Amino acid sequence: MEVEEQVRRVVEQVKELHDSATSFVSSSSQEELSLQKRASVVESSVRRLNSTLLEEDLQRARCMLADGDTSSFLPFKPQGRFVRMFLGPVNVRATRKDIQLKVKEEYNSYRDRTALLFLVFPAILLTLRSYVWEGCLPAFPVQLYEAWLLFLYAGLAMRENILRANGSDIRSWWLYHHYCAMAMALVSLTWEIKGQPNCVQKQKGVRLFLQWAMMQGVAMLLQNRYQRQRLYTRIALGKAKRMDVVWGETAGVDGQLWLLCPILFTLQGFEAYVGLQLLRTALTGVVAEWQVLICGILLVVMAIGNFINTVETLMVKSRFKAKMKRSKSKAELD
Amino acid sequence: MEVEEQVRRVVEQVKELHDSATSFVSSSSQEELSLQKRASVVESSVRRLNSTLLEEDLQRARCMLADGDTSSFLPFKPQGRFVRMFLGPVNVRATRKDIQLKVKEEYNSYRDRTALLFLVFPAILLTLRSYVWEGCLPAFPVQLYEAWLLFLYAGLAMRENILRANGSDIRSWWLYHHYCAMAMALVSLTWEIKGQPNCVQKQKGVRLFLQWAMMQGVAMLLQNRYQRQRLYTRIALGKAKRMDVVWGETAGVDGQLWLLCPILFTLQGFEAYVGLQLLRTALTGVVAEWQVLICGILLVVMAIGNFINTVETLMVKSRFKAKMKRSKSKAELD
Repeated sequence: MEVEEQVRRVVEQVKELHDSATSFVSSSSQEELSLQKRASVVESSVRRLNSTLLEEDLQRARCMLADGDTSSFLPFKPQGRFVRMFLGPVNVRATRKDIQLKVKEEYNSYRDRTALLFLVFPAILLTLRSYVWEGCLPAFPVQLYEAWLLFLYAGLAMRENILRANGSDIRSWWLYHHYCAMAMALVSLTWEIKGQPNCVQKQKGVRLFLQWAMMQGVAMLLQNRYQRQRLYTRIALGKAKRMDVVWGETAGVDGQLWLLCPILFTLQGFEAYVGLQLLRTALTGVVAEWQVLICGILLVVMAIGNFINTVETLMVKSRFKAKMKRSKSKAELD
Repeated sequence: MEVEEQVRRVVEQVKELHDSATSFVSSSSQEELSLQKRASVVESSVRRLNSTLLEEDLQRARCMLADGDTSSFLPFKPQGRFVRMFLGPVNVRATRKDIQLKVKEEYNSYRDRTALLFLVFPAILLTLRSYVWEGCLPAFPVQLYEAWLLFLYAGLAMRENILRANGSDIRSWWLYHHYCAMAMALVSLTWEIKGQPNCVQKQKGVRLFLQWAMMQGVAMLLQNRYQRQRLYTRIALGKAKRMDVVWGETAGVDGQLWLLCPILFTLQGFEAYVGLQLLRTALTGVVAEWQVLICGILLVVMAIGNFINTVETLMVKSRFKAKMKRSKSKAELD
């Protein structure tokens, strides 16, 4: 019969295909394993040498190891708990370099879009408040903004966890920062936005927060532009890995550092100020809701964490520079 | 110099490793490509034959194709927008079969844990309401429950999107259902829980919703247990792929179907009833908040969607049976 013949042939084809797939998978996973072993040995010796001296060849070798095809065989960091909580034990590591770079590029453009909205969204709310809503923010647009913040920080936390799994060197504080920001957005959603009468006083916390968000937007835009320039320069010089991300606030290159640092420290100061204002209103009983207290605490924690991490990054940078100078003068002495 | 020699050796090792990694990646991706081509050709001919007749050999071949090592070379469904929104363009398809199965297993245990909490959480709230809180739910625990629902449905939506990308046959309605449920959780977070006086009437919607959630928990527990049994039986018979998931509410096997179906339809009816109650309170102005209106609409939409999909699944099942019968009697005639 014609159909039976067809079925027989297809079943045979499936079996053949199955066999070749199995043998390919087993042979390639063996080869992968051996590459992984070699990569982890070489990487540890590069790291050992790297901590004692700064050689240009070594730097370039380090980048080749981390950026080339070898990178997918390097021992990888365990996936963050946040990712596992939402996705289960799925592997988010890209094995192919071009996909890894696509993920990175998309992350950058996500941050750009984000920064713009960070600036525009609160600006619109504050403008409407002054000229249309007569000093009183209605609940709905503010809650929409808070829901957007929740969504935004969840996306950032996911993406940065994934970048970390793909070999980026994001400081873990930034992930904790995003978790705090998510908690704050969630808490502030349950926070009743008080209307008339006397809303100017009752909404002071929200107003301060929106002003801080606008400043944050400007700073993020500056940082993104600058980060990208810097990363591309460093990649061109062979000094950075392509997957490196330095989260806005902690990065700076000598020239523009003197512009960025004051902005960052001012932002952190203002964040702490908004937090303390919220704590004051909560404790003096003007708005005696638990949400105000929690948001105040979270803002202060985030401000302190951001400050510590910015200072630490600056210290690492200056230590690196000092090391560079020493190795240069040593080379000249030799 | 000793150190220079070490650096030279390490740099050389890196170069060698880089070369072998590059050649391995390029040769294996070529082989992958050819396996992908073969797999997609064979799959389409299996599918063509499958739609015209039910042959046991063909069924087994289909399972071999989808469950064996070949599965990672089959043409894959584009990743859902939801996943891309949160994760960016990262690949969530597991290439190794054992990881795919781990993802599937973890999803099942996630659903078990979920179902239990679905039952216990609202039960505690309702018990405390009657015996401790004197008929009046306080805001905080209810909001905690709503935040948990948001988190839960986000996790389910992510996991089911990922399972789909890995070859599961989840109906797309269940994903839309989870998006609706997320929207509802988010909206209900901004919904002020009214206290005394008169809270029995004002909180009627919340109370009904909690009762519905408890019923949902019982149904989910029954379904999970039963789904798992059924899947294992079907895998053993070579009739199902391991990655198949039939979302609780639409699945049923002949024996227990007569127990599950009434429960499912009752649940859907009660869901619609709660939704209509909310719509009534919103429209008659007892609680004139937009949140009540939106939650009512969402509940009715979910109830209707669930009903349509359950009926459709039952119809597919009976059509499949009829086909099975016809091909059997045909085989007997031959």
